[in-house]
Amino acid sequence: MADVCGLECLQGVKGVILDMCGVLYDSGEGGGTAIPGSVEALKRLTDSGLPLRFCTNETQNTRECFVCKLRVMGFNIRVEHVFSPAPAARAIMTERGLRPHLLVHPDLVAEFSGMDCNSPNCVVIGDAADQFSYKNLNQAFQVLIGLEQPVLLSLGQGRYYKETDGLKLDVGVFMKALEYACDVKAEVVGKPSTEFFRTVLRDMHLEPHQVMLKHTHPYLYTQVVMVGDDLVNDVGGAQRCGMKGLQVRTGKYRYVISD
Amino acid sequence: MADVCGLECLQGVKGVILDMCGVLYDSGEGGGTAIPGSVEALKRLTDSGLPLRFCTNETQNTRECFVCKLRVMGFNIRVEHVFSPAPAARAIMTERGLRPHLLVHPDLVAEFSGMDCNSPNCVVIGDAADQFSYKNLNQAFQVLIGLEQPVLLSLGQGRYYKETDGLKLDVGVFMKALEYACDVKAEVVGKPSTEFFRTVLRDMHLEPHQVMLKHTHPYLYTQVVMVGDDLVNDVGGAQRCGMKGLQVRTGKYRYVISD
Repeated sequence: MADVCGLECLQGVKGVILDMCGVLYDSGEGGGTAIPGSVEALKRLTDSGLPLRFCTNETQNTRECFVCKLRVMGFNIRVEHVFSPAPAARAIMTERGLRPHLLVHPDLVAEFSGMDCNSPNCVVIGDAADQFSYKNLNQAFQVLIGLEQPVLLSLGQGRYYKETDGLKLDVGVFMKALEYACDVKAEVVGKPSTEFFRTVLRDMHLEPHQVMLKHTHPYLYTQVVMVGDDLVNDVGGAQRCGMKGLQVRTGKYRYVISD
Repeated sequence: MADVCGLECLQGVKGVILDMCGVLYDSGEGGGTAIPGSVEALKRLTDSGLPLRFCTNETQNTRECFVCKLRVMGFNIRVEHVFSPAPAARAIMTERGLRPHLLVHPDLVAEFSGMDCNSPNCVVIGDAADQFSYKNLNQAFQVLIGLEQPVLLSLGQGRYYKETDGLKLDVGVFMKALEYACDVKAEVVGKPSTEFFRTVLRDMHLEPHQVMLKHTHPYLYTQVVMVGDDLVNDVGGAQRCGMKGLQVRTGKYRYVISD
């Protein structure tokens, strides 16, 4: 992240979207730790005046708690600039009249407060970590297999992430488990969903790129850059949306498989 | 099962292989309960003198304990007639010099006693039930992702099974989870593996079918019938092996998805 913000590739760019875990900090015990140089890099980027948003698949906290945690690490971030899957999933469920059975981290439950969770007609899974017990997975499975039209909303599809004490299984692994158990296809909410990135771009009032004429041929100029440590969810998702994707060399970068 | 043993389709058959869970009994608290009529049906089949073997993907017990449990329910079964995935996996690992990290039910561990489990170079998963915790899944994942050539042996690939208090997630679900996490393909040991069925046929000294001439055309006569409640693992596996597959209407029969 410190490197990226000094690169020439940001010349001419009109807005930046940043992944958070693995770019700004490594998660782990006590909330995790800032990656060296990232606090200063974010300050430089903020001071540049470029429109800046944060796009995370973090689902172990409400956005408010998550931003508090990052402020403690020294990052100056506004809640309304952070886009995460839980509020997006809530909007989808409200629109479609879905009542969720939640298999999510206890600290995320508040994002769904006030929703009708009786007689659930869909299952929502997030990064529930230790709550991914056999008992809880069975409960989610039993709800899903009992539905005439099973709906499984997955808050991200990551394979694993890096904590300070090693790699940990992410929500995508349990999404695949339930998909196989019930022979359903999950709807992924969050990165790399194009709809998710488009919501962020609309909030920035920017297009992913700009069409210009160069020597009488149309040419695409990058307007928005997405910076992340994940080749599929960050870089690939951004590219499919028309943005430029930049991969940092922190977080899960060194591992062979990206998710 | 009681119905099958009275059917004409067994006329001319020279041997029978029976699935156990969902055919002879339903698993559950206290070991489960015999399916009405099955004790008598098995006795009739045994008395007929037809060669009989049992083929199960049961991995919550050693074969010895499993047979004891069934004897208590009233089934007269010999241990050496029961074929299950754990001894087959042990033979594969011995042949290939593999040292397992075990994610299996505590009562199955004895099947692997005496094996070298230091510096594991493969992961074996069985139906670990409550042992499928986030912590244990992470441990298996960390072993697998750390291997240069990851080997994942899965004792079966079932989606779910029926216990007396409802459907429960089976080992295949967690196999899919680890496959996705590490981008590997598991090797399934047990049904519906053709090699697994062939081992049983060799023990019976029978071919799956016999080639005869009927009106000068070669014609296949069924020699061995496989009886099970699972359309993929029992019926499909048997058919791919050249046997006839019969599905009973007990166990998981009524559910739409078979595994």
